[in-house]
Amino acid sequence: MAAASPLIEALMEALRVLPGVGPRSARRMAYHLLERDREGGRRLAQVLREAMERVGRCEACRTLTEEPRCRLCAGSGRDRSVLCVVETPADVEAIEAAGVYRGLYFVLMGRLSPLDGIGPRELGLDRLEARLRGGEVREVILATNPTVEGEATAHYIAEMARAAGVRATRIACGVPLGGDLEYLDAGTLSHALAGRREVADEE
Amino acid sequence: MAAASPLIEALMEALRVLPGVGPRSARRMAYHLLERDREGGRRLAQVLREAMERVGRCEACRTLTEEPRCRLCAGSGRDRSVLCVVETPADVEAIEAAGVYRGLYFVLMGRLSPLDGIGPRELGLDRLEARLRGGEVREVILATNPTVEGEATAHYIAEMARAAGVRATRIACGVPLGGDLEYLDAGTLSHALAGRREVADEE
Ligand SMILES: [Zn+2]
Ligand SMILES: [Zn+2]
Repeated sequence: MAAASPLIEALMEALRVLPGVGPRSARRMAYHLLERDREGGRRLAQVLREAMERVGRCEACRTLTEEPRCRLCAGSGRDRSVLCVVETPADVEAIEAAGVYRGLYFVLMGRLSPLDGIGPRELGLDRLEARLRGGEVREVILATNPTVEGEATAHYIAEMARAAGVRATRIACGVPLGGDLEYLDAGTLSHALAGRREVADEE
Repeated sequence: MAAASPLIEALMEALRVLPGVGPRSARRMAYHLLERDREGGRRLAQVLREAMERVGRCEACRTLTEEPRCRLCAGSGRDRSVLCVVETPADVEAIEAAGVYRGLYFVLMGRLSPLDGIGPRELGLDRLEARLRGGEVREVILATNPTVEGEATAHYIAEMARAAGVRATRIACGVPLGGDLEYLDAGTLSHALAGRREVADEE
């Protein structure tokens, strides 16, 4: 469809980096902004640029934040003896929305996946190990997704915790197999947290 | 969900200016860019900023373009004696995709809608009238949408054309009533163009 000008074509193309946006949605979005909401488009461009430049990782839990430490790690209201390990920042949001967890988090930003070159180093597990050996943490709750890779990651960290003398628990299954933590409702998540159990020494 | 940092929250909020994007999609988009495609996010921010600043209207046909004149108006390959009047730039794209029309366009960027304060002036009809009186145009094809407002707009322009001594035709109905030209397939559009007829002096 070369009827649009080069810059408008470029805008439609650029919008397709967004997940779930195909050529038709991209065209609709581009014309919507150009015809009806330049102000909104300018604000989006500005916030997007800032976020891409300034958002980094929390130095304590690795979650995404533009501060050196995220709000939860920097605050004083949480129980520092419990650490919940999740795969993504969206998982933190989901658990926080459930409103029953009072400890801190460690965000892997992924899961062990040797075929994709994602090993312990890429997930910051050296930093997690140092934290577990630091003496402050008494329990680590493994809340990786109940997928094959998520389970393998949980087992790996459970071993690490045991070696450091820290109790390791796994979030209760109640979460459907192959499901995604981010999309669970608060009730299921609360249930899964409450029903957590010790990770057995051997499977 | 205040678990995300202020800048990430602002990004999710800003993404909601896009049509069809609710809180859940906005979160998914924000994390996708932050975790997996910073480069794509930066490019989108850049192109978006440029497009919001630089895209204006073609001085001849009023369509959206960053040049003084759009590619079609600036080129020499089209039949300048036929002018197709449409509501939006997306309609131009749809007709061009059908590949059978060889004339030029005039893009209203809307339709007459007195209740919303959109009159002849807002649609640039003074410029269209000057064009029709200029002597170059022999036929004006009215391709506004077959809605109540689109029909009223077509009638208004047909009167203007007759007063200027220009033949006015209406795109054939084959287009479903209440439908949107932008979403029609090429075959239906070709058919509608070929089946155009004179606008009767009185209804
Ligand atoms: Zn943190
Ligand atoms: Zn033009």
